[in-house]
Amino acid sequence: MAVVFSHCLYHPLSSSSSSSSSYVLAVSLQSLLKLSRPRVLSVSASTTPSQIMDLHNKGRRKFIEFPYVSAPHKKLMVDLVSMLDSRFDSHLLPCTLPPDVQYYQNQSGTSHASLHIRSGHVSSPIDFILGSWIHCQLPNGGALNITSLSTYLNSSTDSPNFLMELIRSSPTSLVLILDLPPRKDLVLDPDYLQTFYEDTKLEAQRQLLEKIPEVRPYFSSSLYIRSVVSPTAILIRIESENVERMEEIIEDHVGPVAKQVLQLWLDKCASEKREVAEIERDYLQKRDKLVRTKTIEIDLASSLPRLFGPETAERVMAAVKEYFSG
Amino acid sequence: MAVVFSHCLYHPLSSSSSSSSSYVLAVSLQSLLKLSRPRVLSVSASTTPSQIMDLHNKGRRKFIEFPYVSAPHKKLMVDLVSMLDSRFDSHLLPCTLPPDVQYYQNQSGTSHASLHIRSGHVSSPIDFILGSWIHCQLPNGGALNITSLSTYLNSSTDSPNFLMELIRSSPTSLVLILDLPPRKDLVLDPDYLQTFYEDTKLEAQRQLLEKIPEVRPYFSSSLYIRSVVSPTAILIRIESENVERMEEIIEDHVGPVAKQVLQLWLDKCASEKREVAEIERDYLQKRDKLVRTKTIEIDLASSLPRLFGPETAERVMAAVKEYFSG
Repeated sequence: MAVVFSHCLYHPLSSSSSSSSSYVLAVSLQSLLKLSRPRVLSVSASTTPSQIMDLHNKGRRKFIEFPYVSAPHKKLMVDLVSMLDSRFDSHLLPCTLPPDVQYYQNQSGTSHASLHIRSGHVSSPIDFILGSWIHCQLPNGGALNITSLSTYLNSSTDSPNFLMELIRSSPTSLVLILDLPPRKDLVLDPDYLQTFYEDTKLEAQRQLLEKIPEVRPYFSSSLYIRSVVSPTAILIRIESENVERMEEIIEDHVGPVAKQVLQLWLDKCASEKREVAEIERDYLQKRDKLVRTKTIEIDLASSLPRLFGPETAERVMAAVKEYFSG
Repeated sequence: MAVVFSHCLYHPLSSSSSSSSSYVLAVSLQSLLKLSRPRVLSVSASTTPSQIMDLHNKGRRKFIEFPYVSAPHKKLMVDLVSMLDSRFDSHLLPCTLPPDVQYYQNQSGTSHASLHIRSGHVSSPIDFILGSWIHCQLPNGGALNITSLSTYLNSSTDSPNFLMELIRSSPTSLVLILDLPPRKDLVLDPDYLQTFYEDTKLEAQRQLLEKIPEVRPYFSSSLYIRSVVSPTAILIRIESENVERMEEIIEDHVGPVAKQVLQLWLDKCASEKREVAEIERDYLQKRDKLVRTKTIEIDLASSLPRLFGPETAERVMAAVKEYFSG
């Protein structure tokens, strides 16, 4: 099955980090506005800090529930979210998306979704971090489940982003997209290729999964998405004989590789300082903006209305655009 | 087997085009120098036009012999060369590579190669066209055979190039690289992606070959080469049960697809005029130059000395660099 719907979203806080998040949230809305970049906050200006915190915590609980996926699938997602939390919690602002964007469903109640986006503190290299899950009942009685997690750095650095998406169109089927998408033209910048893709040995991670007998290559139907990913991108489709085998593959193979790739991103992309010249920043901003705009167009614009109806789709897309076009 | 050696070369004239090529060659060396771009011609200034023509014809005959590959493999190469000939013959200058670069071998006579490069006329969008074959006896008694064909446009157009390489490490093994490598960052130029890769339906050609049961994806060991190719690049490895099946695959599947891709390149990339602004030309020249330099480094610098000895390798590389760094 082609990617029916593949936006890439994320939630930030693990359950163990409520005390530090409370600290971050114990600030006035005015302070929040100062801390964040000039992005329109989705909550109204009269919202109190405790209301923001409630909103954030409620959305976060819903997000890390991952209520429709199997135990190993949920564990993997929660582990990845925790890895980001332990590194970045104090650098992230609370999620200020409206409640009906943090969690939404279609009229008939057959499609459900959670969306969690947190901006980075103004001093952080993180623009925002985004997570989501989507569950849609299929006409054949089965269900489509997508969970995703992605990070977007700002133009203070040119390091790659992180992107992961798990798409399950049945319990024995999995499409995995796992990559550190580059933010420059690799053909024009062999040093960048060397630093982030050769020296990090990302290819070895790709090869680990390639060796699994059930693994086949996955080609996105969008040529633009194929152009956006790196040469070591993990783009695979797995069809297993039974559910148990699929869960085993997720637990023993996909999980360790996904964690290793995220760890590489944390150590090499999100932490190391890189000098970015002024002219280079303009280029980065232009390229980042184009990638985000095209991603929304490809991933959301066609599928959201179909799965959730036009009104909900419009509401969610408007909220996402605030971040993506910022 | 990984690509041991994968430079991409071409010869231009089919056997049926000797009369038109004679016409082109019936010019003085001085005229030739005026017609070609400011590239150092490999023959000395005292070489007469008839000597140039003899040199060209001799090298061309050796090239289109493809003496070590099977009949269907040879037929495919000759057909592709003929397609280029019928479109471009009058736009191409004769091959002026020294005789010991047009054909060379190692000291022990176990490795042989033919190389044919022709520059485009100054009024043509073609910078040069390059073809080759390589034959190397392997220690196990088998042989490695590589045939390749590629075209390089100049900065009067930003259209993609054409690239094809067939690598046979045994009679039942084939690696195929077939692509129109883009000359711009596709992420930053969705219109270019649309024009050359979506509208041309190149993906359908890739899918035709993907459906063959024996086809597996091929990943170049060089991440740079992976970055250079397009999102519809055909990068496959085929292992067949027996020689007959491999020849059938080449004749019935690889051949028609390769011809279709070259036809698309002829119609869409080499013929249609595209406006290229001055600033864009600088960018194109910089990118083209980098791609060529890196390609030599990756493809030739490591393998040529090993297969043909340091002296021959140096001689061939120096000649290729004249074109690649021009």
